[in-house]
Amino acid sequence: MSIHAVLTNVDADLDEAVERLFDLIRIPSVSTVPAHQDDCRRAAEWSCGQLRALGFTASVRDTPGHPMVVGHYVPAALAPSIPHVLFYGHYDVQPADPLERWDSAPFEPVRRRDSDGLERLYGRGMSDDKGQVMTFLEACRAYLRVHGALPLKITVLLEGEEESGSQNLAPFLKDNRDELAADVALICDTDMWDARTPAITMSLRGLIHEAITVSGPTKDLHSGVFGGPAVNPIRVLAKVLAGLHDDDGRVTLPRFYDDVPEPSAELRRKWAALDFSTEAFLGGVGLTTPAGEKDYSALEQMWCRPTAEFNGIFGGNTTPAERSVLAATATAKLTFRLVGQQDPEKIRASFRRYAASMMPPDCRVSFRGEGGSGAVAVDENNRFLTAVSTALQEEWAREPVLKGSGGAIPVVRYIKEILGINSIMPGFALEDDAIHAPNEKYNLDSFHRGIRSWVRVLDKISREVS
Amino acid sequence: MSIHAVLTNVDADLDEAVERLFDLIRIPSVSTVPAHQDDCRRAAEWSCGQLRALGFTASVRDTPGHPMVVGHYVPAALAPSIPHVLFYGHYDVQPADPLERWDSAPFEPVRRRDSDGLERLYGRGMSDDKGQVMTFLEACRAYLRVHGALPLKITVLLEGEEESGSQNLAPFLKDNRDELAADVALICDTDMWDARTPAITMSLRGLIHEAITVSGPTKDLHSGVFGGPAVNPIRVLAKVLAGLHDDDGRVTLPRFYDDVPEPSAELRRKWAALDFSTEAFLGGVGLTTPAGEKDYSALEQMWCRPTAEFNGIFGGNTTPAERSVLAATATAKLTFRLVGQQDPEKIRASFRRYAASMMPPDCRVSFRGEGGSGAVAVDENNRFLTAVSTALQEEWAREPVLKGSGGAIPVVRYIKEILGINSIMPGFALEDDAIHAPNEKYNLDSFHRGIRSWVRVLDKISREVS
Repeated sequence: MSIHAVLTNVDADLDEAVERLFDLIRIPSVSTVPAHQDDCRRAAEWSCGQLRALGFTASVRDTPGHPMVVGHYVPAALAPSIPHVLFYGHYDVQPADPLERWDSAPFEPVRRRDSDGLERLYGRGMSDDKGQVMTFLEACRAYLRVHGALPLKITVLLEGEEESGSQNLAPFLKDNRDELAADVALICDTDMWDARTPAITMSLRGLIHEAITVSGPTKDLHSGVFGGPAVNPIRVLAKVLAGLHDDDGRVTLPRFYDDVPEPSAELRRKWAALDFSTEAFLGGVGLTTPAGEKDYSALEQMWCRPTAEFNGIFGGNTTPAERSVLAATATAKLTFRLVGQQDPEKIRASFRRYAASMMPPDCRVSFRGEGGSGAVAVDENNRFLTAVSTALQEEWAREPVLKGSGGAIPVVRYIKEILGINSIMPGFALEDDAIHAPNEKYNLDSFHRGIRSWVRVLDKISREVS
Repeated sequence: MSIHAVLTNVDADLDEAVERLFDLIRIPSVSTVPAHQDDCRRAAEWSCGQLRALGFTASVRDTPGHPMVVGHYVPAALAPSIPHVLFYGHYDVQPADPLERWDSAPFEPVRRRDSDGLERLYGRGMSDDKGQVMTFLEACRAYLRVHGALPLKITVLLEGEEESGSQNLAPFLKDNRDELAADVALICDTDMWDARTPAITMSLRGLIHEAITVSGPTKDLHSGVFGGPAVNPIRVLAKVLAGLHDDDGRVTLPRFYDDVPEPSAELRRKWAALDFSTEAFLGGVGLTTPAGEKDYSALEQMWCRPTAEFNGIFGGNTTPAERSVLAATATAKLTFRLVGQQDPEKIRASFRRYAASMMPPDCRVSFRGEGGSGAVAVDENNRFLTAVSTALQEEWAREPVLKGSGGAIPVVRYIKEILGINSIMPGFALEDDAIHAPNEKYNLDSFHRGIRSWVRVLDKISREVS
């Protein structure tokens, strides 16, 4: 079977594919906000309907949180050795606030030709991950339209809690281990190398979320009356945070680096040879200088070095007005990005011991956070990797970069540990997609050629892997 | 003229006096919030009406901000030597948020007998400063009812921007220097020593408000992608704040203590002999240990030592949800409390130099704040002081404590510098009044005996000062 007819079909159907994606974007499936619970279910049901329309046996599956969507496709003419792929994506999105910083409403998708001549699709979840999910479904749609059948056994698993900690993912995988069995997982939640060069993500950092609250006086105090003798939780919290890194940018927690492997000289050389401009990468967000650990390149700081990051802080007067108040509490939100064999529970416990040790008299510290994921590295010898890599090369006419990623995708680790299979992660997002931020977008080209890429991947796997 | 009939009249009219105070509390005259601009004017007009009803020639006087209220009372039978007092108070109040921590609505005043058997009046501004202002007006009312005239020349000046920086106060005093001329100022915006012991505040710390914002990347970033190489404004801000105090609680700014006089051994002995329990003072707000400069008592830390305090902080994710975001900016709000000859502008400039020096590459720092007030000490030999002190002693049957105060009342300094007169500051608030915080209250006893105290003060000054 030739795939050129399929690719042509993809091209011809692009406008309608965009409209289908927009339908999904319009559902504000923000998984971290309880008020959007029904929206999450609507997004699940919409996705399930799409799968059924493609001929999948699909269902919305309840969990203690937001539901999963599972769909199965088994070709009628079944060769015994036909590969079975598990496609994973997520239908939930990040909150859209601050709303005032969006140029268009986050859940009213917009297709726009920007001043650089490129068409882009704007809306919350466009890149992370609804647009990427739809590249795969649209590839299946085109393939089916032309050939009447898909060339592989395909299971699709869509999660609704990726942005809220994936609390129910591992239990779901465990409970449905047999149903979800496959030869390999395909995940589309990562970036291209650049707008012209595809990439496959080979390693991911782990992630812990942690919140710390320092409490002092039983109530907010007047800073004139109590300023001096009353302990100040914001000051104490600032000391805790300021003490977490040394002057070289290293995390000061004891034994933090015990399970962090130094990158090999060969790896460092290979990464240094990549067409990566630190200036351009940082310059895109108004920065010039890598701010992570001294003596590591920006790429190394992202791909193979752990971090402690402060994601939010609040306490006392957060209004524009001047107020002579001493806050009763102050809170910070942190993430730790983990690499190598760093253990989430050990790191979390180490942070809590450190913070507790910094409390002066009259201050209490409390923490919120649990779970987390360790880092994963996908097996470079996986037999599906070559097929995916070749498919991408044919679509983009460039060899894909086999790269690391600073972000965590906990499902990769769960899939490895629970289902026993590796994940291949091509992705069509771009670094400037503004995921988790206002004005999230997905280039029309990412969407279009993402669909075409998946057509080639399905075809390539069906031909070359057995 | 005997004042006993006046005091009896105060007692008999108390319930109605409370109702009049409640009318004023119901006007949410929050001067820092533009949405309450009309409410501030309403409070001014209400106060002006009260003064007119008492026979004052009173008017609401526009300023570039919230209006002033000025009223004059000149007794018909005017002895050449009759003293002229200027009473100052403010009709504006602090914002009421966080609303959810109030037991009753802040602008719906409540009179309640609490479980300790004491009656208290709850509402925003009850203690700071509406209730205290009304003690003076109600004293005048009772005096007038009984005697038909007041025994002094009295000018009343009520400000509407005390809680928002008093930007227009000094210009107003300058522009109306002749009209506001008097022999002494009386200010009612301070605390009793305790619920049974009156106090006159003799010194006040100065105050600077300052806001600092650290900016890094041009937009919020994903902490997975950028965590490591991207500079983190929250981390930088935490370092700035954490570096502002040394381990002994001293402010680290260069030359910060140059203009801070050490308290004399005699003063320290006198203060140490006061019936002041650090345990009780701090214990009332859940604390045990003075957290200010080492080697100074809690009273000294409040009354004669300067501070740098953090009043608020915010940046990045301030929601309950977990978000993998790196903030583009982080902001902190500070106050400096000044003593001795510390100069507001020098201190502000010193802080700004220090913070700017802490910026790493790619971080910009900006500041907001201006003006501020230096510390003031009221002349202990003022001829009105003895009269006020004696009046208080007669009402409360205890010698008033001549105390310091940690808070700033900029008007005291302006009155000294512009009008050339001293301020005597008796006050009937209590330390647990929760001013600037939820559930602000004023004890009924503070209100009642505050009124009686002013009756005695007016009488005493008219008899003993000439």
